[in-house]
Amino acid sequence: MATHTLPPATERWLEHYPVGAVVACGSVTLSEAELLEFAERYDPQPMHVDRAMAEAGPFGGLIASGWHTIGLMMPLFVEHYLPFNGMAAPGIEEVRWHRPVRPGDTLRPQVTVLESRVSQSRPEFGVVRCLVEVFNQKDELVLSLRPTNLIRRRPDAAAQG
Amino acid sequence: MATHTLPPATERWLEHYPVGAVVACGSVTLSEAELLEFAERYDPQPMHVDRAMAEAGPFGGLIASGWHTIGLMMPLFVEHYLPFNGMAAPGIEEVRWHRPVRPGDTLRPQVTVLESRVSQSRPEFGVVRCLVEVFNQKDELVLSLRPTNLIRRRPDAAAQG
Repeated sequence: MATHTLPPATERWLEHYPVGAVVACGSVTLSEAELLEFAERYDPQPMHVDRAMAEAGPFGGLIASGWHTIGLMMPLFVEHYLPFNGMAAPGIEEVRWHRPVRPGDTLRPQVTVLESRVSQSRPEFGVVRCLVEVFNQKDELVLSLRPTNLIRRRPDAAAQG
Repeated sequence: MATHTLPPATERWLEHYPVGAVVACGSVTLSEAELLEFAERYDPQPMHVDRAMAEAGPFGGLIASGWHTIGLMMPLFVEHYLPFNGMAAPGIEEVRWHRPVRPGDTLRPQVTVLESRVSQSRPEFGVVRCLVEVFNQKDELVLSLRPTNLIRRRPDAAAQG
């Protein structure tokens, strides 16, 4: 399927998330200062916070915390994919960090809808599972994860059951 | 098994991670200011950044980004569980946010070793799978996830094969 463009966030309903849709989510570039700032607070391991130890280690330099890579993806996922003021996600299957992310890398998230159905317990919502993939400037996959989101149905569609 | 205490981070080897070991990882209290600061940068959804919309929503107030809950857990996991200067984790199975985390909550991570074995491809390492559970001040489970970590074997143990 060609790249799918969603309406503005306030107009996104379950019907806008067909299985197979691929949504491009812009891009973001990571600076070394931001890498260090995140890691010092949220993931203080030498490969993320200590330039000298990171250079002596297996990656030959600082790499971003995997959680930071997710934190860089999320604002783009919120802007380009999620409905405005949606529900909290109950969980994530299978987070994978495929390659290191380094200072200066540009990250490009892409989302593919895997499953889209009406919720049995809450028929005003749909349950949408997707695959989020984040690529770097060389088009190498650096991160993938599989969130499940609750997405509202358009009120008139939900009323028809 | 009773709560297991690991040696200091620089002296942790595979042998210190037996299956069934339960490691208490201290605690941390979340302020509203910190909740908002994280969410504005890394997860800007109304339930995490907009007090008025959050109060009108299903949780009746601001809740922390689930990624922030992980970011609060990680420094404690690094300090109390991981070996110093370890390897990057390849991935996580099954992240679950069981209950909302709110300003003022105190979070207490606990780690249980699920599997511990010598790596076949890299026999100087062990592959250790664990369950991380984070409880709040009411002992309610708010977060669980299942990381896999590569943990070095003590050099003399690794030399014996």
